Amino acid sequence: MDDVYSYLDAHLNEALRELQELCALPSVSAKGQAIEETAGWLVDRLRSLGLDAQVLPKPEGGHPVVYAFAAGDSTRTLLFYDHYDVQPEEPLEEWSSPPFQATLRTGRLYGRGVSDNKGNIVARLWAIRAWQQTRGRLPCSVKFCIEGDEEIGSPYMEEFVARHRDLLRADACLWEGGGVTWDGRPQLTLGVKGLLYVELAVRTLARDAHSSWGTVLPNAAWRLVWALSTIKGPDERVRIPGFYERVRPPTPEEVAAVEAMPAEEEDTLRAYGAARYVGGETGAEVRRRHIFEPTATVDGLVAGYTGPGPKTVLPAQALAKMDFRLVPDQDPEDILAKLRQHLEREGFGDIEVRYLSGVRPGRTPVTHPIVGMVRDVLAQVYGREPVVVPSMAGTGPMYPFVAELGLPVFDFGIGYPDTRIHAPDENIRLEDFLRGAKAVAALMGRFGEG
Amino acid sequence: MDDVYSYLDAHLNEALRELQELCALPSVSAKGQAIEETAGWLVDRLRSLGLDAQVLPKPEGGHPVVYAFAAGDSTRTLLFYDHYDVQPEEPLEEWSSPPFQATLRTGRLYGRGVSDNKGNIVARLWAIRAWQQTRGRLPCSVKFCIEGDEEIGSPYMEEFVARHRDLLRADACLWEGGGVTWDGRPQLTLGVKGLLYVELAVRTLARDAHSSWGTVLPNAAWRLVWALSTIKGPDERVRIPGFYERVRPPTPEEVAAVEAMPAEEEDTLRAYGAARYVGGETGAEVRRRHIFEPTATVDGLVAGYTGPGPKTVLPAQALAKMDFRLVPDQDPEDILAKLRQHLEREGFGDIEVRYLSGVRPGRTPVTHPIVGMVRDVLAQVYGREPVVVPSMAGTGPMYPFVAELGLPVFDFGIGYPDTRIHAPDENIRLEDFLRGAKAVAALMGRFGEG
Repeated sequence: MDDVYSYLDAHLNEALRELQELCALPSVSAKGQAIEETAGWLVDRLRSLGLDAQVLPKPEGGHPVVYAFAAGDSTRTLLFYDHYDVQPEEPLEEWSSPPFQATLRTGRLYGRGVSDNKGNIVARLWAIRAWQQTRGRLPCSVKFCIEGDEEIGSPYMEEFVARHRDLLRADACLWEGGGVTWDGRPQLTLGVKGLLYVELAVRTLARDAHSSWGTVLPNAAWRLVWALSTIKGPDERVRIPGFYERVRPPTPEEVAAVEAMPAEEEDTLRAYGAARYVGGETGAEVRRRHIFEPTATVDGLVAGYTGPGPKTVLPAQALAKMDFRLVPDQDPEDILAKLRQHLEREGFGDIEVRYLSGVRPGRTPVTHPIVGMVRDVLAQVYGREPVVVPSMAGTGPMYPFVAELGLPVFDFGIGYPDTRIHAPDENIRLEDFLRGAKAVAALMGRFGEG
Repeated sequence: MDDVYSYLDAHLNEALRELQELCALPSVSAKGQAIEETAGWLVDRLRSLGLDAQVLPKPEGGHPVVYAFAAGDSTRTLLFYDHYDVQPEEPLEEWSSPPFQATLRTGRLYGRGVSDNKGNIVARLWAIRAWQQTRGRLPCSVKFCIEGDEEIGSPYMEEFVARHRDLLRADACLWEGGGVTWDGRPQLTLGVKGLLYVELAVRTLARDAHSSWGTVLPNAAWRLVWALSTIKGPDERVRIPGFYERVRPPTPEEVAAVEAMPAEEEDTLRAYGAARYVGGETGAEVRRRHIFEPTATVDGLVAGYTGPGPKTVLPAQALAKMDFRLVPDQDPEDILAKLRQHLEREGFGDIEVRYLSGVRPGRTPVTHPIVGMVRDVLAQVYGREPVVVPSMAGTGPMYPFVAELGLPVFDFGIGYPDTRIHAPDENIRLEDFLRGAKAVAALMGRFGEG
């Protein structure tokens, strides 16, 4: 592999320029921005590497999926799942450099999407180029499935996978995302949480009233506050009846894997400037909770007057944005129904629950044979023992790849704990970017051998 | 009085043009806009009527107060309290015409300040002009005290009144605001509620995090929701210990006055497009609560992402704007201290309570002799029995006029129940404007007789 690695070492600047070009396309799926251009850019780039690339529509008007295939020396096929869309760049004023002008500073590249997930796409393209340029061939067949609305919950991905079952057939799937721990160990992640994203909206009056009417007229902000406080309390336990009903307890092997993970709890607290974890939890209990437990999170709140000075107004409308991270075998449709029933029963039938997106959770067992192979590859490339993570705390549309295609799905990548995905100053370190590309190249070689 | 009334009838258009001119000055005190220009406009206008007018500074950099005096035929002096500042115009998109271009439509004038309180200022100037033009004299001495930050809670008004005790000496004070009921009866109001306005702010992290951290990292939006839900619950009872401690029970005469008020509860519901009052209250109980009870109102809420689409973010910061309307003998400083203690005791010491403004409540007894005189004047001008309201539900800096100057203070004016003060499409009806000016003119005449 030394020739392949040397090629990657020698072409870091070229890969960075490619990543800067891709990140300059502001493909924020929530705003429907630059979608066609970004899909087109990827098809051109894949074709220039000799892959058979095309843009496939998603059902129901979802953003198009970029699909590509190239045959390799082995009959075994590795499927790369990625997404070309990114999160909104707001709040703009908290960025140190413009989010869509990926900028190098002290060994890091800052910009929206450099980590999540455009950097991984470029690392994979770069690994393919390295094999082609050094060996004139690919050691295994590869497929790409790069979607354009992962950041808005991957609507219709289940339908898309079902419709393109044959096209997507493979032997394993390398997922998007991933990275190294604070002390440089590569993480091998085997699952995702599901997601239910909703808006809770309430209108009590035809228009805002003078706040002196707080005596007798219903206040939308209060209604929303009271409704939310029935969903989760300061004990952090979700109060929707049946919410935890379908939570599958982790296996002993999954629990053991989480206990063996490095104790980075203090580093995380420092990175986020937090005084303590909720409930004052520490150590392995924080990891256990983070990986195995579902959540109920208020993502946003707005009502009434929020500008400077003491404007006295009784808000007619209020809105909360909320997400629930779900674990196997919770189901977003079921949780949505339970949330609605709960609010109704608690006397909050006036709160409108608007469904925005739902994704089912998915996991590959830590005992699957491919896990050992990928561990070996990562141990060799990074010179450190990989950390096996049974599931990420985040979400992706892994469910149909596991359930419909029957693939083992795993994930490693170019990030690190302070990579700030979804936040201002999203960034990657150049050494992680290079090492991540080497890991993809090494995996392709080892995977082709069977 | 027919000559005076005829003058007013004949000069409605002139008064409207004057009001449009005054409303074109966007004197939003919360934004510090057009303050000097508006005070200057008033001084010019008062001087053109022969009053001795000047601009007096407020302590601590508050907006200046316009003061004016003119001697009349009687030794008795009537003090007019008004304010030249207005509420912010937002939300702009809900106005049918530009807020600072007062616009006539179907017998109504729409614009910010037409009712609260510039329309009353112009009605008072117009009544003075009517006496001068028809009789060549004023029937009593008059003083004006027109402040510029009533809409931001009248900071330093107590200090201002104490400093200018002699200048403001009078025999009674006609307050700003007021209007007729749905069925055309003039309201005579004798008090104001106090106010405490605060911001509740919390920061849990140095910056927003990916919402998957909802498992273990503290969420500012949840902290705020939980803290607010300890302040008031769906039973509408304020839960701050001692909040109701200093509430002085209404006198039998005050209760009788409220019971005698017309039942306009259904009209108010319709005007605000509300289905019902809080707690399902109806009839006199709604009035009793509205006039005698203190409130805790969420005026605004903001945290995290509030734009379109499902952005998954854990908010690092959250803010609520809140006001408490207070009744005699509650005190804003005392309530602020109790709020802080309450949050601390409930485990919300992380919530920062920022004081924005405080005003003490004030009332003139319904049994004061001047109440009978003003009732007679209003009954004559409107041809209907006045409604005596022991206190408005709103707030003003009446306390020092009652307590420091020892004046009886009362209030009637040009509004009506759908006048929409503090809201989009603030408006007055032309007949109310004219009748309000006549009532001021008649009061001056009767007041001068002693």
